[in-house]
Amino acid sequence: MALARFSRSGLRQSRGAIRNFANEKDTRNEGLCANQHPSSAYIGNISAGSNLSYLSSIRRIDYSSMWSRGLRMTPQHQFAHAQRVEVEDSNSEYHESTSRHPTLEATKPGEKPRVLVLGSGWAACRFLNGLDTNLYDVVCVSPRNHMVFTPLLASTCVGTLEFRSVAEPVIQIQKALAKDPNSYFFLASCTGVDTDKHEVYCETAENAGLPREPYHFKVAYDKLVIAAGAEPLTFGIKGVKEHAFFLREVNHAQEIRKKLLLNLMLSQNPGITEEEKERLLHCVVIGGGPTGVEFSGELSDFIMRDVRQRYTHIKNYIRVTLIEANEILSSFDVGLRQYATKHLTKSGVRLVRGVVKEVHSKKIILSDGSDVPYGLLVWSTGVGPSEFVKSLDLPKSQGGRIGIDEWLRVPSVEDVFALGDCAGFLEQTGRQVLPALAQVAEREGKYLVELFNKVGKQNGGKALCMKDIPLGEPFVYKHLGSMASVGRYKALVDLRQSKDGKGISMAGFLSWLVWRSAYLTRVVSWRNRFYVAVNWATTLVFGRDNSRIG
Amino acid sequence: MALARFSRSGLRQSRGAIRNFANEKDTRNEGLCANQHPSSAYIGNISAGSNLSYLSSIRRIDYSSMWSRGLRMTPQHQFAHAQRVEVEDSNSEYHESTSRHPTLEATKPGEKPRVLVLGSGWAACRFLNGLDTNLYDVVCVSPRNHMVFTPLLASTCVGTLEFRSVAEPVIQIQKALAKDPNSYFFLASCTGVDTDKHEVYCETAENAGLPREPYHFKVAYDKLVIAAGAEPLTFGIKGVKEHAFFLREVNHAQEIRKKLLLNLMLSQNPGITEEEKERLLHCVVIGGGPTGVEFSGELSDFIMRDVRQRYTHIKNYIRVTLIEANEILSSFDVGLRQYATKHLTKSGVRLVRGVVKEVHSKKIILSDGSDVPYGLLVWSTGVGPSEFVKSLDLPKSQGGRIGIDEWLRVPSVEDVFALGDCAGFLEQTGRQVLPALAQVAEREGKYLVELFNKVGKQNGGKALCMKDIPLGEPFVYKHLGSMASVGRYKALVDLRQSKDGKGISMAGFLSWLVWRSAYLTRVVSWRNRFYVAVNWATTLVFGRDNSRIG
Repeated sequence: MALARFSRSGLRQSRGAIRNFANEKDTRNEGLCANQHPSSAYIGNISAGSNLSYLSSIRRIDYSSMWSRGLRMTPQHQFAHAQRVEVEDSNSEYHESTSRHPTLEATKPGEKPRVLVLGSGWAACRFLNGLDTNLYDVVCVSPRNHMVFTPLLASTCVGTLEFRSVAEPVIQIQKALAKDPNSYFFLASCTGVDTDKHEVYCETAENAGLPREPYHFKVAYDKLVIAAGAEPLTFGIKGVKEHAFFLREVNHAQEIRKKLLLNLMLSQNPGITEEEKERLLHCVVIGGGPTGVEFSGELSDFIMRDVRQRYTHIKNYIRVTLIEANEILSSFDVGLRQYATKHLTKSGVRLVRGVVKEVHSKKIILSDGSDVPYGLLVWSTGVGPSEFVKSLDLPKSQGGRIGIDEWLRVPSVEDVFALGDCAGFLEQTGRQVLPALAQVAEREGKYLVELFNKVGKQNGGKALCMKDIPLGEPFVYKHLGSMASVGRYKALVDLRQSKDGKGISMAGFLSWLVWRSAYLTRVVSWRNRFYVAVNWATTLVFGRDNSRIG
Repeated sequence: MALARFSRSGLRQSRGAIRNFANEKDTRNEGLCANQHPSSAYIGNISAGSNLSYLSSIRRIDYSSMWSRGLRMTPQHQFAHAQRVEVEDSNSEYHESTSRHPTLEATKPGEKPRVLVLGSGWAACRFLNGLDTNLYDVVCVSPRNHMVFTPLLASTCVGTLEFRSVAEPVIQIQKALAKDPNSYFFLASCTGVDTDKHEVYCETAENAGLPREPYHFKVAYDKLVIAAGAEPLTFGIKGVKEHAFFLREVNHAQEIRKKLLLNLMLSQNPGITEEEKERLLHCVVIGGGPTGVEFSGELSDFIMRDVRQRYTHIKNYIRVTLIEANEILSSFDVGLRQYATKHLTKSGVRLVRGVVKEVHSKKIILSDGSDVPYGLLVWSTGVGPSEFVKSLDLPKSQGGRIGIDEWLRVPSVEDVFALGDCAGFLEQTGRQVLPALAQVAEREGKYLVELFNKVGKQNGGKALCMKDIPLGEPFVYKHLGSMASVGRYKALVDLRQSKDGKGISMAGFLSWLVWRSAYLTRVVSWRNRFYVAVNWATTLVFGRDNSRIG
């Protein structure tokens, strides 16, 4: 690993001081693992706002070239409340300013090693959940304080489930974050990583009148786990970000719900023309993957059962169209695809083969030139690397994800791991990049945390202390199958291990029962498991709630 | 009634055309009640955007002086999404523009009379709930589509209850609104009332790309029920509206919750000073009425049970201060007041006697000159008339509410009723203005709807058709008692009928059981009754949820 890092250092446009610095670091590192954090030997630990002059006076090394690495911003649209940080024009100015940031200092000798986890999705939370906090202190940085149970998110848009039933607070998943004196959860976005200094740069997700705006701080780590997720793909199509809703976060589902109920009510106003009514009540879903199909299914359920009964004036105007460039549910068995197509059509969902060219505020334009007026547009065409991931100067896999080896390590830098939607196997591993699925992310989280617990027991937790420890078996992903509900108590279950593999695949009411039971058992906490069951039961008895809050 | 209206017409700065118009109307009115809507005889029914030229060409009466009545705006802060309408400079221009508004036309002979209800609070919803829709068509106009079960709103801020458990959709309360072909719910604010023309001016609460922005429309009525509620009193204190949270709507509770959880998380950031931590985690409640006390109690519960366990790093910084100018719970029995004071103090709530002078973004200044830094400020000092109510040119009671007689009628205009927090007995009735309580509003709603159902059966439902029908007993309010929870399974129950009356008053755990049971039985729907019970049970078992959504 040290070699890999050296070769990177050599490739950089580094100045003499840096080279010396790098050499010095590795020399000092020898034999410190068990009792001392090596970085404390070479990096002045900065406490908040106090002895900063000390640092700048005795360390005048020009780090500027190092700052070209990964010191960029997290995009505003990635998370609801992330705010942009203005990166200063000059790198040295940036260094000046970042060196003054308050810091969670590097761990001292005798202290537990610190694992820093970026993100709070499936991968991050499975990792957090399993971490042995007797071996590690843990810090989690994420702009949202909860994990989203994504497979059930589509159900919350129409009120089948409550929003909070699919949100699991991170500090409930790993209680040490709230209880252990040296473990923390920070509601912040990560803006940059310095893998040499073992530091991460953060910016609070919201300010609430903190002394500086935006509020920046640094967190030193012994081990870094990047599980920052991905972003919806828009393929650069004009107007998508402005006018379409994504369906990745709970607040996305809240916004979709609010818009849907708003349109249902406004279309009843006096003076709304037939044409306008049809537009307002036309729900268009772009992308025929599981999310798009499940959302369409939920919508048609909502229309069939609730709108027909409760919105008599406009019940004949509401329609759902699902637009997909290729085939819906392309990863599923062909029989299941046919079943889904038939079932959705029977439920009133119009399936359109088409490619979106432009999105305007009230209509989309397809590549064949036709207009599709809409009142609600949900965009669900898969995910790609986030701006944050793009900005990191780390090896990349095909598709621009953070490149990892078979042990989920990021080669060429030490103590950095990546997993979930933001990571992909490097080409030289000879493995394919895994799909951006909850199932993959969770399995990776499980694998990595077991590796961490093993390494931690052998005193490999501290920074730069892992190289002599055998890591054991590499990560192997075994696909357990795919499921998707299509509405009206019907679902698809595909238990084949790969697209061309053999295995059971089935569709219908029984599959729907399997789908519900399987997800119910996967819900993280007993509290939410209980609530999901209660929500389902009340929806069955009372129908969906349609109060429009906020 | 006709006399009263005439005398008002005489007092107005009316022009000749108007006088003639008024006379003409009353002459034509004779004998039309049972079979024809009188207003259709003198007001051209305008359908949306079509035959407008017809109207403006044959009716060039100058209505300008009439428009001075009640054609003002609903304040933006009254409801979350209300938007301001720019009132045109010239009244005649305003008339020009309003006459073009799409209209829900006056009911025709043979059609059921139309009751128009403004608002969706306790009074409006109790009225809607009881209305005999065989006798009436009903239209409800409100900027929110649900009723809020206000006594339990404070519990939602800290996660004891879910937000949707205290919100009841209006179309569930009165199903005809969604199902009957001539009944509607409009998500809109009322901007003005023309009591002579029997019309109300509305503006949609949100736009969603409707053809015009803001989107205005008119609704003609046979009977108008104003139950538009009140607004938080700020006494003109600088900075309250900018920096404090009110606690009247579900989205207020959502905002409070988000802020509270934000502050809990941000205060753990590296580099936050002790002083800043104390500020961020200082929750200040202004006003010691039931809402303020219940919210303080819930907050202290949340701190004692959840924050202590889940936010170890900052548990010693969080504090609650309740500031009241006089005594807390002044309407309660003196023994109960003392109990509440003792209990809140024991629970860690600091009670401060003080008057707020100014509110800044991070501190409030009291009239004795002292500073109180805060991280969360909740303002709950009672309510007063809204800008909409102030703008109406109707008789007013003491305190500026819409003046009503013993039958909840607004004298001097016909077919207009007012109830709930926006209405008060006129001085000449010899009655006191009733307090702005859910109990009062609900009782008034119940009384009025019985009166409406009685009148409707005697063919008095249509406009100007009520004068010969005996109204029966006037409304009499009998106070059933007051309740307030103070946290930690304790509550106060005061069953005295008035402040100086005699009766049972008790406090403690038994009262808390009474409080919970009483409210549980008052929750409107079985669905929410079930959810409130489930929420309480899960809070007991799992603690409060602390995911910060949105």
